[in-house]
Amino acid sequence: MQEVNFGIIGSGTVGGGVLKAIQRNGPLMSSRLGVRLTLLKVAVKNKAKTRPVPVPASLMCTRWEEVVRDPRIHVVIEAVGGTKTAKAIVMKSLASGKVVVTANKALISAHGEEIFEAAQRYGVNFYYEAAVGGGIPIIKVLREGLVGNRINRIYGIVNGTCNYILTRMKLEGLEFDEVLKDAQRLGYAEAEPSLDVDGDDAMHKTGILASLAHGFWVNPKQIHMEGIRAISRMDIQFAERLGYTIKLLGIVKKLEKTSGPGRRRKGFVPVQVSVFPTLVPNSHVLASVNHEFNAIFMRGDVVGDTLYYGRGAGQDATASAVLSDLADAALDLKTGNMNRIPPFVPHEGEGTVLDIDEVVSRYYVRLSVVDRPGTLAKIATILGRSKIGISSVIQPEGHEGESVPLILMIHDASHAAMNRALTEIGRLPVIKAAPTMIRVETFD
Amino acid sequence: MQEVNFGIIGSGTVGGGVLKAIQRNGPLMSSRLGVRLTLLKVAVKNKAKTRPVPVPASLMCTRWEEVVRDPRIHVVIEAVGGTKTAKAIVMKSLASGKVVVTANKALISAHGEEIFEAAQRYGVNFYYEAAVGGGIPIIKVLREGLVGNRINRIYGIVNGTCNYILTRMKLEGLEFDEVLKDAQRLGYAEAEPSLDVDGDDAMHKTGILASLAHGFWVNPKQIHMEGIRAISRMDIQFAERLGYTIKLLGIVKKLEKTSGPGRRRKGFVPVQVSVFPTLVPNSHVLASVNHEFNAIFMRGDVVGDTLYYGRGAGQDATASAVLSDLADAALDLKTGNMNRIPPFVPHEGEGTVLDIDEVVSRYYVRLSVVDRPGTLAKIATILGRSKIGISSVIQPEGHEGESVPLILMIHDASHAAMNRALTEIGRLPVIKAAPTMIRVETFD
Repeated sequence: MQEVNFGIIGSGTVGGGVLKAIQRNGPLMSSRLGVRLTLLKVAVKNKAKTRPVPVPASLMCTRWEEVVRDPRIHVVIEAVGGTKTAKAIVMKSLASGKVVVTANKALISAHGEEIFEAAQRYGVNFYYEAAVGGGIPIIKVLREGLVGNRINRIYGIVNGTCNYILTRMKLEGLEFDEVLKDAQRLGYAEAEPSLDVDGDDAMHKTGILASLAHGFWVNPKQIHMEGIRAISRMDIQFAERLGYTIKLLGIVKKLEKTSGPGRRRKGFVPVQVSVFPTLVPNSHVLASVNHEFNAIFMRGDVVGDTLYYGRGAGQDATASAVLSDLADAALDLKTGNMNRIPPFVPHEGEGTVLDIDEVVSRYYVRLSVVDRPGTLAKIATILGRSKIGISSVIQPEGHEGESVPLILMIHDASHAAMNRALTEIGRLPVIKAAPTMIRVETFD
Repeated sequence: MQEVNFGIIGSGTVGGGVLKAIQRNGPLMSSRLGVRLTLLKVAVKNKAKTRPVPVPASLMCTRWEEVVRDPRIHVVIEAVGGTKTAKAIVMKSLASGKVVVTANKALISAHGEEIFEAAQRYGVNFYYEAAVGGGIPIIKVLREGLVGNRINRIYGIVNGTCNYILTRMKLEGLEFDEVLKDAQRLGYAEAEPSLDVDGDDAMHKTGILASLAHGFWVNPKQIHMEGIRAISRMDIQFAERLGYTIKLLGIVKKLEKTSGPGRRRKGFVPVQVSVFPTLVPNSHVLASVNHEFNAIFMRGDVVGDTLYYGRGAGQDATASAVLSDLADAALDLKTGNMNRIPPFVPHEGEGTVLDIDEVVSRYYVRLSVVDRPGTLAKIATILGRSKIGISSVIQPEGHEGESVPLILMIHDASHAAMNRALTEIGRLPVIKAAPTMIRVETFD
């Protein structure tokens, strides 16, 4: 039987999970693959540390270079996180002719193009299934299962922390800060939660999905991103009354037509790539994806609508995806072809990310207004002047006092037009707080 | 660029769909794969026939042997359906060293072992992604994406016709026969619907999933199967009142312990493989999978719970899956390895299908009883004697007349024990119609 040796660098959540899973299911995988998988080394920071998943002393080393330089090792699993050391590990491993497996979306987002180029140059592969959707094999589905499709739409709940917070805010009627504190206590959110709740993590993942779906590398700087800190319990409740659930969605939408002056380059297919809280109709499957679960909805031009659901984070889900990559690496080595499905294949040179100003959406707008005749007329005048159509106006009952909420549901309008109009509306003396604007998705 | 030539045998729903999809997305696939895909021949029954997807005259031939014998053709797509000619096509193609792609679950169910053995003997591959779950890449997910997992549970809504009928029965309060007629008119059900509504199609698919998940070939004869003809509007409505939705589920459940006398061979891991209507709690994602959609819920020991959703049938969804197989075949040819992931790999010799008599479930039982004191006591006595526990009894209001419905929810009991008890209960003079028994799934 073919022998494939691998090493793990890092023994935290990801590394520990892979170690645990391979100890449990390594022999089963070997029999499925016809390849003997042997873990030769685990690089740790501190040998003396007590770990939830103990690393066998015979495998332990303290310098990552020992794994990368070991000529017996064919596959390196990078599990240190961050982008600096991780990049060094990846580049050195590729240069040494080793296949690399990682779950590190931040690394790919920051240095993907350079890494992919290096993998090609050195004739080895670089796998990153665990970087998006945790245990959901979404990279494989996108690159292989749906390879015969143009992916016209992707809507992803790809950050488990945000989904957990939004779910509890809805089900328990709590405010963001209350749930965040509890989520931190329970381990669903980091002590420093900004990478999750401000949207960066979802942005990294959405950028990877967009790049793979459309065959041009999406620069993270071009991805418009809004987190969930500004979502209030009130918005969740109003949305519910209107038949919607608020989810943080990564959206990748190939556009046929756009409004606006058309800043994008001629002949290039414009693609909306964005991350923001979105009102999802309760009848849509994504509205039912709750707690820490992730789900990615993809619409292909041949297959139609599909959805993939599972745990998007956590030690075990991540390990499942890493093992799937390890299996592909092992089969590459077994069959003697190290580049069967390269990490990234450009296939439509003509794609370009649509500027957020040109992105057209529907909107939910909540204003805090003085309850006085003529208020709505003033607001409607500004919107009308901007050619923004109001589809409905709701002044919820049961609110009294100096200011009351006023909900506007807005027809399709560009981000730029909405921004201008809301800035103007915000300056009206009858408006008592900064307007809240959340997009509404119809999944057309 | 590597050249891969293929032929399609059959130009009905599946063949026509593949033709349409490759005409549309062939160049995109080629650029993604780095392989030039060329369709050389399409074998049709009747050249003169007008088709929804016209076959170019230059590609048309009338004998399937012309495709199989063409030395330029590397990949044969079998799209004739049925098991007789299809088997001949597959065996001849494999013997000619051609990779075969098919969507034909009946063929695999009937002759899978023989075909897999032939593929191995001739050193070529046999792909069948479209055989289960239509456009959902579930075979790839199971064999590759979740390769590091023991698949402890599979619950699949794998027959679109049944799901369409059950969904409309629920949403519109109709009886089975009414919806079936309408489904036939609309093309969601065949004129001869028994392969769908009696469970055969779901059984074929469930058997394939079970075989792949557990690494031993499941003989279709061992799969207990019940269709949906006996489901009445009344049961759907009572289930709804109790918080459940009735779905036809293919279930593959690895058991840790079983009740009953233990007829299975010692040392073998018993696996429940069955197809029957099931009460699914409304809080479970599968309860929300409606209309003609399919969804497969899989629980891996590493990844946890995952779900895959999409169109389970239809020309385009099937074509998407066939193209995914064609892509894998093309990459096999490009990399010079024709057996990277063989059609079936036995990996746990010790599995065995649990006899249905030993399968333990919860049950919903509807009896038609004479509304008279002492009736329940008689029923409860029989169940008690069989050591079957009743978890609740519901006598719905608003029913009058000679007989009234009585609903029993039953704790875990084996199929054999339930059958015996219900046969005895059915003989009581107070029972006015054959008892209805539907299993209840808790997804533990």
